[in-house]
Amino acid sequence: MEKFFNPRSVAVFGVSDKPTNLASGVLFNLSLFNWHGRVYAVGARECEVAGMPVYSSVLDIDDTIDVAVVLTPAKFAPAVLRDCATKGIKRVIIEAGGFNEFDAEGRQLAEETAAIARQHGIRIMGPNCIGTMNAHENMVLHFSPQKRIMGPGPVGLIAQSGGITMWLVHLVWREGKGFSLAAAVGNKLDVDETDLLEYYLGEPRVERVLMYLESVARGRDLLEVARHSSKPVILFKANTLPETAKIASSHTAALSNDDAVVEAAARQAGVWRAHTAQEMLNALNGLAMKPCRGSRLMIVSRSGGHAVMLADAAARHGFELIEPPRSFYEAMDRLIPVTRIIRQNPLDIGDVFDLRVHSRVVAEALKIGEADAVIFFHTVGTAVEAAGPEMMRPFVELAHTAEVPLAVGMLFQGGDIVPLKQELGYPIFETPDDLLEGLAINRDYYRRRERRDRPRASAVVERSVQKAAAILGRESGSALRVDRALDLVQAYGIRLPSHRLAAEQHDVAAAAEAIGGPCALKVVSAQALHKSDLGGVALNLGSPEQASRAAATMGKTIRDRVSGAVIDGYLVQAMAPEGVEVIVGARRDASFGPIVLLGMGGIYVEIFESVSIRVWPIDRTDVMEMIEELAGAAILRGARGAEACDLGALADVVLRAGTLIAEHPRIQEVDLNPVRVYAKGALALDSRVILGR
Amino acid sequence: MEKFFNPRSVAVFGVSDKPTNLASGVLFNLSLFNWHGRVYAVGARECEVAGMPVYSSVLDIDDTIDVAVVLTPAKFAPAVLRDCATKGIKRVIIEAGGFNEFDAEGRQLAEETAAIARQHGIRIMGPNCIGTMNAHENMVLHFSPQKRIMGPGPVGLIAQSGGITMWLVHLVWREGKGFSLAAAVGNKLDVDETDLLEYYLGEPRVERVLMYLESVARGRDLLEVARHSSKPVILFKANTLPETAKIASSHTAALSNDDAVVEAAARQAGVWRAHTAQEMLNALNGLAMKPCRGSRLMIVSRSGGHAVMLADAAARHGFELIEPPRSFYEAMDRLIPVTRIIRQNPLDIGDVFDLRVHSRVVAEALKIGEADAVIFFHTVGTAVEAAGPEMMRPFVELAHTAEVPLAVGMLFQGGDIVPLKQELGYPIFETPDDLLEGLAINRDYYRRRERRDRPRASAVVERSVQKAAAILGRESGSALRVDRALDLVQAYGIRLPSHRLAAEQHDVAAAAEAIGGPCALKVVSAQALHKSDLGGVALNLGSPEQASRAAATMGKTIRDRVSGAVIDGYLVQAMAPEGVEVIVGARRDASFGPIVLLGMGGIYVEIFESVSIRVWPIDRTDVMEMIEELAGAAILRGARGAEACDLGALADVVLRAGTLIAEHPRIQEVDLNPVRVYAKGALALDSRVILGR
Repeated sequence: MEKFFNPRSVAVFGVSDKPTNLASGVLFNLSLFNWHGRVYAVGARECEVAGMPVYSSVLDIDDTIDVAVVLTPAKFAPAVLRDCATKGIKRVIIEAGGFNEFDAEGRQLAEETAAIARQHGIRIMGPNCIGTMNAHENMVLHFSPQKRIMGPGPVGLIAQSGGITMWLVHLVWREGKGFSLAAAVGNKLDVDETDLLEYYLGEPRVERVLMYLESVARGRDLLEVARHSSKPVILFKANTLPETAKIASSHTAALSNDDAVVEAAARQAGVWRAHTAQEMLNALNGLAMKPCRGSRLMIVSRSGGHAVMLADAAARHGFELIEPPRSFYEAMDRLIPVTRIIRQNPLDIGDVFDLRVHSRVVAEALKIGEADAVIFFHTVGTAVEAAGPEMMRPFVELAHTAEVPLAVGMLFQGGDIVPLKQELGYPIFETPDDLLEGLAINRDYYRRRERRDRPRASAVVERSVQKAAAILGRESGSALRVDRALDLVQAYGIRLPSHRLAAEQHDVAAAAEAIGGPCALKVVSAQALHKSDLGGVALNLGSPEQASRAAATMGKTIRDRVSGAVIDGYLVQAMAPEGVEVIVGARRDASFGPIVLLGMGGIYVEIFESVSIRVWPIDRTDVMEMIEELAGAAILRGARGAEACDLGALADVVLRAGTLIAEHPRIQEVDLNPVRVYAKGALALDSRVILGR
Repeated sequence: MEKFFNPRSVAVFGVSDKPTNLASGVLFNLSLFNWHGRVYAVGARECEVAGMPVYSSVLDIDDTIDVAVVLTPAKFAPAVLRDCATKGIKRVIIEAGGFNEFDAEGRQLAEETAAIARQHGIRIMGPNCIGTMNAHENMVLHFSPQKRIMGPGPVGLIAQSGGITMWLVHLVWREGKGFSLAAAVGNKLDVDETDLLEYYLGEPRVERVLMYLESVARGRDLLEVARHSSKPVILFKANTLPETAKIASSHTAALSNDDAVVEAAARQAGVWRAHTAQEMLNALNGLAMKPCRGSRLMIVSRSGGHAVMLADAAARHGFELIEPPRSFYEAMDRLIPVTRIIRQNPLDIGDVFDLRVHSRVVAEALKIGEADAVIFFHTVGTAVEAAGPEMMRPFVELAHTAEVPLAVGMLFQGGDIVPLKQELGYPIFETPDDLLEGLAINRDYYRRRERRDRPRASAVVERSVQKAAAILGRESGSALRVDRALDLVQAYGIRLPSHRLAAEQHDVAAAAEAIGGPCALKVVSAQALHKSDLGGVALNLGSPEQASRAAATMGKTIRDRVSGAVIDGYLVQAMAPEGVEVIVGARRDASFGPIVLLGMGGIYVEIFESVSIRVWPIDRTDVMEMIEELAGAAILRGARGAEACDLGALADVVLRAGTLIAEHPRIQEVDLNPVRVYAKGALALDSRVILGR
């Protein structure tokens, strides 16, 4: 990656002297900002652009080229790549569009280009992107002529879309010092967000990373890279809904991800996922402060009304206000001799008009050991506008030396607050809500990182891998026969009500007899996988005779309803006692690999739609956290005096399902629905196992 | 109110020639902005300030005074009011603080001042406020010297706090043309938000109203005024949480409201309640557009990435994207002859660089009859910055002539967007999220107004008012005896399981015999209101003998646990069949008057904390809406094949409880907990009635 951001020489393909020529924009940007490297122009026809010769072939250039920037029409890309290979260029940024995001022909061009690159060991960025920018080196490979480089600052930017990249550059710059490195990955034929993130995390000039993605191509790899990051990573993932998939696909050829999986993976990786532009900025600013290690706040406000709003927002975000010690108020008395200030938190210092006293009050607040963060909210009336950045600088200095974060807000009633923010280089929040959201993100981010980084017990469970492999080996279809699906999960130690397979209808009575007590009957047929909808399930059969009669009816019903149905037998299962029903699942996500799911079942499934998801592997503590996330957790803990469920047994089911899918790549999906959880133990009543190709 | 905003003469009290004198600020503001009225200064000592004589008594002024502005220390307020009375001044703005928001002495001063005002028919605004501002008349009675009047524009501002007033003035001005009238009501000794709102609604120059309140003093009156408004009213209500109450009380002597009641009242009144500063601005901007009458959108974007974000945000806010007709695309083909534009919604016109074509595309989009709103999102690169407001004006013109709202967004990558917004005077949203929130608020606001304005059936129910009055008349305590509480709700037609009161323990068996079947037993004692906690409830008593034995045990338990407990008898109640449990309540809110509540009961009460609230009166349709708001509504509708509950019978219980509390002012609270709802009918199993003083 290094050379994509720090090349010594660049060749731009597609340059011509037409006024609408996009490639010339790259030359313009490199020249305007006085980039120190060597630049060459390549075009269809020799000419001169801005005093620079345009070569008709890159092979004519008598220099080594670190990076090629391609802005020719898409159809020429394969030829350009071949020339690059001949010339020994190993890094190509294809900024041109018209590839797989556009039409079938474009898709073919993309594949051809990628194949050539692979063959010659060339790394490609794009197509359909704006390339890389390095604000420290004044290097802008974007084709659109820029007025200024909005950096350098501490933020590394990764975006899928060129338009969004420039918007992020702009937003980050408005909030402070701006970006350090930026890149748009476009259609991600080769280089993707994971490559870039990995590079940024090792690059000292990037302190925080902001990513905008419309798709996550290698989710598991991204998670692996991100989970080792000690730099805050903020992800704005768009294209979250089925409604959006079409437009995203035509924009950057982005495929949709399961949004709940992305959400879970981000949490596990300690990546802050923002859902709106404002949350993204609040995260960026919130994470520019020192870590907030708890929820106890001391608030100082220059306006009583904003003190009320701050207290509201603080409570909404789960903060509590400390009771400042007497020593703090004594210090106040010394600082503000004659005053009508009321001793409370938030402290309203609206009646203190001496600007120099404000920072002294905040300095005292920072000395209160029990506060996890201090907030100062300024209201700048028109009369004190003139003071400008100088007025705020003491707070920034306090923030740098303090042990806890100092969150500074400001209702700027002057003109544009942006120059002030840039001058200070420290986050200034503009509303109480934004400030508290930023601080809450900071607190929760570090909490999640603690969770992420805690030592994890191995989830090794007693199981019979070989038995499972043997069961899977017997199946050639796309779904396991129900009895085998039960045997499979049982091989991984998941407890079931006792069951027997009756191969024929006349074996049912004997099977029911062997099980004893009331039983359930389920048809076994590859044509009737949704067996309950088709009349393939009968419950509470009190006697072997009843079971036998039920099998006769069931066989007839299935054959009537599903033409050509082959009945492989009848599963006879002991009826399980009533219990709290949950759904446990494991699935292989195309991007993130094995994941496990836990949700409420039975009547609750319709009421609580929430499901908790984790990317595998996880340990028992993680499962306990999953349970806590469920809207119906109270039921499992034993609501209204009911006995609490055996959460350990439930956790065990989840861990075993996860282990099963992780150890058998052929399994695409395991559904245990329902699992009944009791005061002691848990039983899976049914198992559905889908196999991959 | 008129004279508070349009006085012809003003006297300012508390003027001196000291440099720190606050009252001089009012003179400064009136003079700086060339207010056309007559201004007089009154101070402790005759002198001259800014060339103006300072009178030592208002009685020396030879003119009629419309408004007095008081900035003397609080302790002089009563004397000033007496002088005002003598002088015949009928409107006084007390801007000084140090009254009931501060300490006990201040509270007494406030009461004394209010009494003098009442005696002489003087209206007081404040104390602890910044008075009125009329941007059309250049009138600023604020004591803090201002640099400019940030208006006139279409927004009327009402705030409790001076700091917040000025902040709102600033925010509204940043978004466009600014404010029209503004006032801070401070401690609301007399004039309050309801007075001001009533005035603003009748004032043609106010098109929209923005209110910031820390307390709602006369909630019912405010609701009455607001519900007749055809002007959008936006309420930012702070001081929403117990944690905030203390700071608000010391800020503007604000008492807390029950926040859920405020929320419900705002909905019923068609007032848009904003919960954050950004939501407030989005509402202000959203409601500056034409009404959005549905959820079908057409989106045009200048950037593919933002098109994805817009589509995400649209789906999140419950919008759907229309499939544009062929005629639209044909028009596109004529407008953009050679193009790579993909036919879809959102329409990404990122490759159209001719700025004049953009507005033509949007004009075509507005012609699509089936869209309820059109969105245009602009991304302004640095290269087109220079075009400035002219570039956006065609869109504003389209918005004015279109039949559906045109929501315009812009990622301004230039400098400060504020001058552009002010120049255009039409809302420009800065992020996709804000735009969609603004549009969703618009849609939901007009939906709620339709609900608000629909004809309501009278909720008159069959009942015996006299019987209820008689029951209430018999009770002198603060809670009705349980049998009377049951009789009371029964008098209003609420159905109960049959019950009998056994005055003595030896009457219990006979009562149980008379009821027949299994019964419940509840102790009747004023000392054991929380009867189940004290062992005062026994359920499922199968025979009269069992009931009798239970009464004996119960009597002993209660006497053991509550020393001095007087047992008035035992209530014997038929056991009710199982059903879905809900809680129905009615309460008299100190600010909003009678309200009704509905929540899930039984096991669900711990799982779903949600309660639906309405200010009385409501009708059956309203109750159906309340049911829909409950998180557990699915259970009432019959989840997982269970039979649906008799929602009509449930609605009846709510309407009867509401009628009861509305018709008997002595009742403070009625709790029916639980009410069991069946496939047919509903039964209240218990009734608790609290009386007011």
